Amino acid sequence: MARRRLRLGMIGGGPGSFIGSVHRMAARLDDQYVLVAGAFSADAGRTQEMGRQTFLDPARIYADWREMVRVEAERDDRPDAIAIVTPNYLHHAPAKACLEAGFHVICDKPMTTRWADALDLADTVERTGQLFALTHNYSAYPQVRLMRTMIRDGELGALRLVQAEYPQEWASTAVETTGDRRAEWKADPARAGAGGAVGDIGTHAYQLACFVTGRTAASLCAELTAFVPGRRLDDNAHLLLRYDDGMRGSLWASQVAIGNQNAFSLRVIGETGALTWSQEQPNQLLFARHREAVRCLERQFAGSRLPPGHPEGFIEAFGRLYSDFAEQLGARLESRAARPEALLVPTVEDGCEGVRFVLGAVKSSRQGGIWIARDDWAT
Amino acid sequence: MARRRLRLGMIGGGPGSFIGSVHRMAARLDDQYVLVAGAFSADAGRTQEMGRQTFLDPARIYADWREMVRVEAERDDRPDAIAIVTPNYLHHAPAKACLEAGFHVICDKPMTTRWADALDLADTVERTGQLFALTHNYSAYPQVRLMRTMIRDGELGALRLVQAEYPQEWASTAVETTGDRRAEWKADPARAGAGGAVGDIGTHAYQLACFVTGRTAASLCAELTAFVPGRRLDDNAHLLLRYDDGMRGSLWASQVAIGNQNAFSLRVIGETGALTWSQEQPNQLLFARHREAVRCLERQFAGSRLPPGHPEGFIEAFGRLYSDFAEQLGARLESRAARPEALLVPTVEDGCEGVRFVLGAVKSSRQGGIWIARDDWAT
Amino acid sequence: MARRRLRLGMIGGGPGSFIGSVHRMAARLDDQYVLVAGAFSADAGRTQEMGRQTFLDPARIYADWREMVRVEAERDDRPDAIAIVTPNYLHHAPAKACLEAGFHVICDKPMTTRWADALDLADTVERTGQLFALTHNYSAYPQVRLMRTMIRDGELGALRLVQAEYPQEWASTAVETTGDRRAEWKADPARAGAGGAVGDIGTHAYQLACFVTGRTAASLCAELTAFVPGRRLDDNAHLLLRYDDGMRGSLWASQVAIGNQNAFSLRVIGETGALTWSQEQPNQLLFARHREAVRCLERQFAGSRLPPGHPEGFIEAFGRLYSDFAEQLGARLESRAARPEALLVPTVEDGCEGVRFVLGAVKSSRQGGIWIARDDWAT
Amino acid sequence: MARRRLRLGMIGGGPGSFIGSVHRMAARLDDQYVLVAGAFSADAGRTQEMGRQTFLDPARIYADWREMVRVEAERDDRPDAIAIVTPNYLHHAPAKACLEAGFHVICDKPMTTRWADALDLADTVERTGQLFALTHNYSAYPQVRLMRTMIRDGELGALRLVQAEYPQEWASTAVETTGDRRAEWKADPARAGAGGAVGDIGTHAYQLACFVTGRTAASLCAELTAFVPGRRLDDNAHLLLRYDDGMRGSLWASQVAIGNQNAFSLRVIGETGALTWSQEQPNQLLFARHREAVRCLERQFAGSRLPPGHPEGFIEAFGRLYSDFAEQLGARLESRAARPEALLVPTVEDGCEGVRFVLGAVKSSRQGGIWIARDDWAT
Repeated sequence: MARRRLRLGMIGGGPGSFIGSVHRMAARLDDQYVLVAGAFSADAGRTQEMGRQTFLDPARIYADWREMVRVEAERDDRPDAIAIVTPNYLHHAPAKACLEAGFHVICDKPMTTRWADALDLADTVERTGQLFALTHNYSAYPQVRLMRTMIRDGELGALRLVQAEYPQEWASTAVETTGDRRAEWKADPARAGAGGAVGDIGTHAYQLACFVTGRTAASLCAELTAFVPGRRLDDNAHLLLRYDDGMRGSLWASQVAIGNQNAFSLRVIGETGALTWSQEQPNQLLFARHREAVRCLERQFAGSRLPPGHPEGFIEAFGRLYSDFAEQLGARLESRAARPEALLVPTVEDGCEGVRFVLGAVKSSRQGGIWIARDDWAT
Repeated sequence: MARRRLRLGMIGGGPGSFIGSVHRMAARLDDQYVLVAGAFSADAGRTQEMGRQTFLDPARIYADWREMVRVEAERDDRPDAIAIVTPNYLHHAPAKACLEAGFHVICDKPMTTRWADALDLADTVERTGQLFALTHNYSAYPQVRLMRTMIRDGELGALRLVQAEYPQEWASTAVETTGDRRAEWKADPARAGAGGAVGDIGTHAYQLACFVTGRTAASLCAELTAFVPGRRLDDNAHLLLRYDDGMRGSLWASQVAIGNQNAFSLRVIGETGALTWSQEQPNQLLFARHREAVRCLERQFAGSRLPPGHPEGFIEAFGRLYSDFAEQLGARLESRAARPEALLVPTVEDGCEGVRFVLGAVKSSRQGGIWIARDDWAT
Repeated sequence: MARRRLRLGMIGGGPGSFIGSVHRMAARLDDQYVLVAGAFSADAGRTQEMGRQTFLDPARIYADWREMVRVEAERDDRPDAIAIVTPNYLHHAPAKACLEAGFHVICDKPMTTRWADALDLADTVERTGQLFALTHNYSAYPQVRLMRTMIRDGELGALRLVQAEYPQEWASTAVETTGDRRAEWKADPARAGAGGAVGDIGTHAYQLACFVTGRTAASLCAELTAFVPGRRLDDNAHLLLRYDDGMRGSLWASQVAIGNQNAFSLRVIGETGALTWSQEQPNQLLFARHREAVRCLERQFAGSRLPPGHPEGFIEAFGRLYSDFAEQLGARLESRAARPEALLVPTVEDGCEGVRFVLGAVKSSRQGGIWIARDDWAT
Repeated sequence: MARRRLRLGMIGGGPGSFIGSVHRMAARLDDQYVLVAGAFSADAGRTQEMGRQTFLDPARIYADWREMVRVEAERDDRPDAIAIVTPNYLHHAPAKACLEAGFHVICDKPMTTRWADALDLADTVERTGQLFALTHNYSAYPQVRLMRTMIRDGELGALRLVQAEYPQEWASTAVETTGDRRAEWKADPARAGAGGAVGDIGTHAYQLACFVTGRTAASLCAELTAFVPGRRLDDNAHLLLRYDDGMRGSLWASQVAIGNQNAFSLRVIGETGALTWSQEQPNQLLFARHREAVRCLERQFAGSRLPPGHPEGFIEAFGRLYSDFAEQLGARLESRAARPEALLVPTVEDGCEGVRFVLGAVKSSRQGGIWIARDDWAT
């Protein structure tokens, strides 16, 4: 825990940006950052809107990211770090500018669209000595980190196989022609880079395979396909991989895999054991040893924010109550009606009913297990 | 979205309090609250520690909740609402004091330990006109709210059965004698009230059954048992329930159910359809119609913070990256070494590897699917 | 293994009888019985039809079960045992007659509809010294027997809870008025007895709870409901049970539980461990010890007919190939066309394709992993 | 249903042979075959033992399969068909001899080890006009056949992807050196052919992919690996496949995949829908349409032997009761003690307990839901 909240700037992440919103929630979750500046969109109006939504000082809302970097660099209360959450093609230039202006950088993945840019960024990081974080978020799940630790500790023996798959269905039709901004840039080689599914999600799968096994691939053989007519980038990628030290693997990334939302999974198999993790059940890690019963390792409280059995969405539901109640409070402050769904927050009547229920249960049980009508539960 | 962040005070939730920490994360998640005052513990040192951790103005950290209510009520920038996250027996007095001092209240469940206190609180809410939220958090899951909506819309026909169960294993042994503070007060009738498992988690199950079906029970028959020798409150509760309009149900709450972490589930069955929700798989809702294939309804993006297929823990893992990076930044600011696990954040080398991987995949595929060594992927 | 196949007679089990057909398949499965005589139905034509289908000697097909018992008792090659698979009300009389005529008896459950008949049958068994088997089939699953053994061996410690549930959906509407013969007698108190769902499937649940725990209930509290208008027997049963030695439990049997086909499950929880078995996943047994990872115990080969990972339906699919091929053979013997679906049996072309595939895979791999066109796989 | 039971001979399938035993159970299941002759093993003693176990006429137990083919061909009651369940290298010669002697043939897979033999067998089938069935058993599961029908009916639209995987763990160590006969021949190129895992189980995966999609592959790219030191055939096979009409796919067959018993699964994805079938959950078929809730299609009664919700192991458990009871009967016939586990068959006391339970439940419920002690249930 730092002695003050860290100051954060953001480039990209305008209204409607999924990943920008996730970065901001992530920054708030453990109360270690405060957002102080933003250049959220190439569209000035959208930037202003997001600035208002995030309660920013109007002087620190910027229409141009270059200006933000220049101006903020001069302030005494300059950001400690700047998060870059633009489309892929717009990672390199702002990241480099931030690093050179003395900001630490948090950058979304994939890092760049071009190899030269990637190398240049690596050089810049080395040259400036600034910190650089790439948000391959899957490597931060508690059970993924446990997987990595168990592998390092030799729980699987010598590694043999790593099977990664990452199927999604969202690009099964030509969504990029329907006005969906995110689908548009992801399907455009100029903005997304040379890879479609392989770049967008294949990189997650490959990164995680490397992260947990501690190996990189020695060679690969790929079959990339664009199934949707007119699409310029792959929407399906099949790869065979030969990793260091004789490990073999396959990797399947698909955005036309109907029936799958985000079904990323990783299986690592060694000489004596195996581990399986699935992103859609992130709180469990399956551990098999040869000829033994498969064990289900539940996420523990240590190193996470919640006890086992409370999948991490617990916080979100709690947050929903707080936000619904904020809507009720805001409505009262502003003398208006609250949105109807915000009224679903349990209230004092629910509290009474709960107390009554406990008393009724105790009364019935104490009398040997008889039926008691509700009017008599609490009397 | 209110025009400013709402000001929040907190009573209870000292260091090590699970539910206090959840309330604070929930308040930050959607960026609508700022914590401004707290009386976190009966122990002054613990209160100070939590005040520091939450970056509170030292003047607004209070050793006594009564004092906090009195002093804060006089401020211009007084809290809009106060969250009460103390043990059950300490809900009534501070909640009442807050309401009477003109604060809105967010209160943890079960609301009180005594029926008279519950009625008194209901009266106080009515008399003062303040808002009161009870954090039965399970009613805020998107799929639970969908369940409620579908039932109201008649998707199940006339309701017949509601089966609620809430098994946990944590109290299978005499944990209350091991120095665990939370286990201690939950096992103590003076602090927890007349119900053990039935109060602690049975109330959640009953509240959710009522919430989604829109009915309360007409009568009940209960069998409460304390299996662990020496325990004074039930650790297992079996109930049969007759609800209004002929609906029948059972409810099982247990804290000695080995193999279960927090396996709360609710099944509602009607004349023509049925719905099943399980807290440990909160993003799915199973919907059956008579003689049709069961359908798995995935949580949607609308009304939540994430697209389907991204279970809500997604934010937590992202938050882990931000917090680990904050540790790196803090370490640098303070000229110390970062904690080793904070170094697991992906960095620029991972970014280069990802770019290289995409280029290698594209190259292999373009050449008809040949094996390419890693050194040649990006060249 | 006996030195000859045992001779079996059957009462009940006419055309369309589900349970009669299951008894006959079960008798053939391990090749220890041969069906030699039958009185399959009160309808003489239906009895003849089943006799032909089972290739019985026409002299041993009986219109009346009393005649069968009398005549068969005189034969040298008389049945060793007689299986009784009639509706519940017709178990007692034939079972008693068979026992008194010196036949061993295999009887479907529930044994009788009246208590006096049950006692009378118990007396008859004792008096005649004949063997009597009641087909509570769930007690014969390998993982159920393992559950029983583990409990006896103390793997769970002192038992605390047994949760049994058996939900089905088939009687959610008034099926007994639609001409369904099985639904008809099951809904008729005269033929089914005093219990509806509680008799039909609740008895399975209770028997299994007793079988695996080695205890019977000391007392019960029941709520039986008939949800479907006009129905005379319960279609839903909720029970609380107090078992011997302080074990507690609940039992839910329902035939209006939409979304459930035959979702029988049993959970037994003790002081130190717990076991869960679900009929729809019969090859697995979940074993939890307090605070340890849940383990999934797979059915083993020893004591069963198939290796782990081959759910027992494996035999049925194999049987389908044999039966489809029998249809092809029969068609040829009878100079007629085979039913089209019988032609789905893989044939010599499939065999060639498989061989070709293996050779192609080996060839590609040996050449370093190159793409090879199908025409070149085997050349 | 033919007008008599078909006569079956068998080559291979001696004591301890898993697949021989499965073929015999499959032949009996629907009561359409009777085993009349066998040459079960190269070892005369083992052949005699299996002949006795199957109650064969001693004159029709053969030490040499060639003799069996020759002698049986002369009989009036000659077999209609002969099942060949020998190791792979011994399929071609007996199959050819049987066909030429006028027998229909049921042959285990893979059909032959050599391409020339495969072609020769295809010629022989054509020349002789005999029927030939290859037991790719997975193609006979009801949900697999449903999958095929749905694909033919266009439920998925134009096909895009077929993902097949078949992981097992049994060969993770050098089992072929431990005296396991089956492991021995499967690891020996002379007896198993050129493929290890790819031949043994990869052929199942490829056959099923072709069966359900109606396509064969146009080309393949393979990576076969032998992970276990000293092993001469692959124990892991990764393949990429280009199928006819632009369909793409991958196939993974492994016998070193720790944690997997027989986890064969097949996913077919088209333009508008997708289907997933898993051998270890054979009674369900998952059906997804783009952007709709995934539906779980349960096996139906029509076209199978059991209603939905009764996984096909139901028959096996019933069979266990019959076999245990046969052991009791046999023991009595032979004046010996029955094996103890055969005494687990429920008996008349269990029948009484069940009747008592139903009466107790009815009595409690009729009296408004009161607790009733067991002694009073039936009185």
